[in-house]
Amino acid sequence: MPVPFGSARLERLVKRLGRLPGIGSKSAARLALHLLYADDTESDELITALREMKAHVRPCTRCGAIAEGDLCDICQDARRDDGQLCVVANATDVFTMERAAIFRGRYHVLGGLLSPLDGIGPADLNLYALFDRVEGDGFEEIVLALAGSVEGEATALYIGQQLSDDPVRITRLATGIPVGGHLEFVDDVTLTRAFSARLPLS
Amino acid sequence: MPVPFGSARLERLVKRLGRLPGIGSKSAARLALHLLYADDTESDELITALREMKAHVRPCTRCGAIAEGDLCDICQDARRDDGQLCVVANATDVFTMERAAIFRGRYHVLGGLLSPLDGIGPADLNLYALFDRVEGDGFEEIVLALAGSVEGEATALYIGQQLSDDPVRITRLATGIPVGGHLEFVDDVTLTRAFSARLPLS
Repeated sequence: MPVPFGSARLERLVKRLGRLPGIGSKSAARLALHLLYADDTESDELITALREMKAHVRPCTRCGAIAEGDLCDICQDARRDDGQLCVVANATDVFTMERAAIFRGRYHVLGGLLSPLDGIGPADLNLYALFDRVEGDGFEEIVLALAGSVEGEATALYIGQQLSDDPVRITRLATGIPVGGHLEFVDDVTLTRAFSARLPLS
Repeated sequence: MPVPFGSARLERLVKRLGRLPGIGSKSAARLALHLLYADDTESDELITALREMKAHVRPCTRCGAIAEGDLCDICQDARRDDGQLCVVANATDVFTMERAAIFRGRYHVLGGLLSPLDGIGPADLNLYALFDRVEGDGFEEIVLALAGSVEGEATALYIGQQLSDDPVRITRLATGIPVGGHLEFVDDVTLTRAFSARLPLS
């Protein structure tokens, strides 16, 4: 029986691509075939970009966000507000926050969320560095911008407990119905929270 | 203003990945970040697989399907039926046909479909080689396994006209409602064809 793709090398590329997150076997085949038929420059440029990224991009030594040197652009930016620290789970969350342009302080990336079921405890996250920063850097407010999941809640709770002796103000993102969201698509827990946190019509 | 991703190199990789078919800017970012945080072996293996594929995989000189040498596995396979030739638009269609395991003959890959609106004429496709093969190789049947689109119809019609003087039997895939398909989701043209081609209940 012939190899399904007629080429062991093409098969191998499809397999590698199929291991990437969100890429199923059909997408992997489409990508591999696109790269096969595309000009050599396209794959060369992709390879160069990947090599360059792997060689030079690393977590910021202070906050854990993405950096090309020791410190990320935000940690290096003197115009950011040193009084506010936003705690996020992943480096991608920093981009999400920045895109919304709602926060001008500093960030701290945990590298995940507490999840006892997955064996992720405090020591697996960038938590002790957070506590050190909070103790040493004199922030006025710590904003926990974590997911509304069980893991996000657990992580927020843990951080709150650990920092309970610190005078710093700790806040978290509000839960509620999304803007433009229809009530019928909102789950009960969100609805309950949105109801209890209801605000006067201004 | 900082670069959105905090790294020009990461940005570049995201941009390159985002040019691939079916990869939007969000998927590209997710892929790039996955590769950033993944072990170096993962990106190294991906790069090697891509390089190897580009260096060794090319169209079969006879049928246009995917090959690692001059001829593809199917063209080299002596057990295939030399009397039947299946004409498909793309090399991927060969895998689709092979997956269904319904055809044991040879293939011919056109490399696309006729599309005057996109400026794709007979000379842009692997058509003359098809006519040469049909003339020289003594096939009994040419099965046109082309898309049910306007382009597929036009290409089938053109092939039929060009081979009208040849005694070879030319067939095409039946159009009709898909197995498991509900009538309400079937378009009118398909329904009309399925109705005219209706069969006695056996």
